[in-house]
Amino acid sequence: MRILLIGASGTLGSAVLAALSELSDRAEILTASRSGEHPVDLTDPASITALYDRVGSVDAVAVSAGVTPFKPLAELTRADYQAGLTDKLLGQIELVQQGLGRLADGGSFTLVSGVLAYDPIVTGAAAATVNGALDAYVRAAAIELPRGLRINAVSATVFEEAWEAYGDYFPGYQPVPTAEAARAYVKSIFGRQTGQIYRVGY
Amino acid sequence: MRILLIGASGTLGSAVLAALSELSDRAEILTASRSGEHPVDLTDPASITALYDRVGSVDAVAVSAGVTPFKPLAELTRADYQAGLTDKLLGQIELVQQGLGRLADGGSFTLVSGVLAYDPIVTGAAAATVNGALDAYVRAAAIELPRGLRINAVSATVFEEAWEAYGDYFPGYQPVPTAEAARAYVKSIFGRQTGQIYRVGY
Repeated sequence: MRILLIGASGTLGSAVLAALSELSDRAEILTASRSGEHPVDLTDPASITALYDRVGSVDAVAVSAGVTPFKPLAELTRADYQAGLTDKLLGQIELVQQGLGRLADGGSFTLVSGVLAYDPIVTGAAAATVNGALDAYVRAAAIELPRGLRINAVSATVFEEAWEAYGDYFPGYQPVPTAEAARAYVKSIFGRQTGQIYRVGY
Repeated sequence: MRILLIGASGTLGSAVLAALSELSDRAEILTASRSGEHPVDLTDPASITALYDRVGSVDAVAVSAGVTPFKPLAELTRADYQAGLTDKLLGQIELVQQGLGRLADGGSFTLVSGVLAYDPIVTGAAAATVNGALDAYVRAAAIELPRGLRINAVSATVFEEAWEAYGDYFPGYQPVPTAEAARAYVKSIFGRQTGQIYRVGY
């Protein structure tokens, strides 16, 4: 199975890469990020086209990338919402739309959303908005995918690896290791489920 | 209580207007729509500013407007998603952002989302995406609103009044009268709840 992992260099992406690498007898892993083996800019549809052209046919696309602004509600501008929507939401939707005709039959998309859609924190309104959009998109897209293609999202709470930097923003949250979220990616890619939001740690 | 109802001329909006009018001893209702008493274009932030300037201080803003494209998944373009996000999502977020400093203390925002975020239909991916975003936004914004301001969303299934036109797209759905959704607006505006997604008919 050929797996394209986008955001492989990030905190979560490294864990996903490690989990997939343990299955290397069953998987060839292609990694993409802003500046990696295969560079990609999720905000630019042409960059996504170039990525698909370069890697050729794949069985699975998994994403652990996507940026949203964090600011107090009153300071979030229209441009902030648009930035989050363009990057994490439309970037991942673009990967799916362009992948519809490219993934092998029965292939899968695994997107990344997050806990804030359900369990909000102060400064998290733009992130919540984007994550809520992604989860609903995944449920809706799943029923229209052609050729046995599948789609799921991994929605994790805050990570242990990010706790020192961000823990203060998540009072009372129980962080989880990224390895736990990585298992949800493995389930999505190697299982047969579709239209699922895998909640990790909450 | 002064209530600004946006989208008052639509199928749902007429029912909300009727329900609020029954409470006219407790409410003064100002109606806005694309071309009504107070014209407004939700896609244009300046038009929203002009609306707020014109109506003066209000206690409640309620929305029953917002357009998203309906197309088969494979035909939904980036521009389609952007159109839905700009109209129904960013339009309502803009109403809240601009209203933060304008609504009277303890005032409320009541937004409109919809069932497709959870119970998808073919051609509904863009609508689902927008509705999922709205629900998550409402939960997140609720915890940061100043001065006792509140925010809720009304998320209804397909309406009896729209069944003849759209029923074929909703196989097996049980339509509800718009009057049932209108009661959720009344609960949001005259109650004290916040951060709620009022599911109507599902």
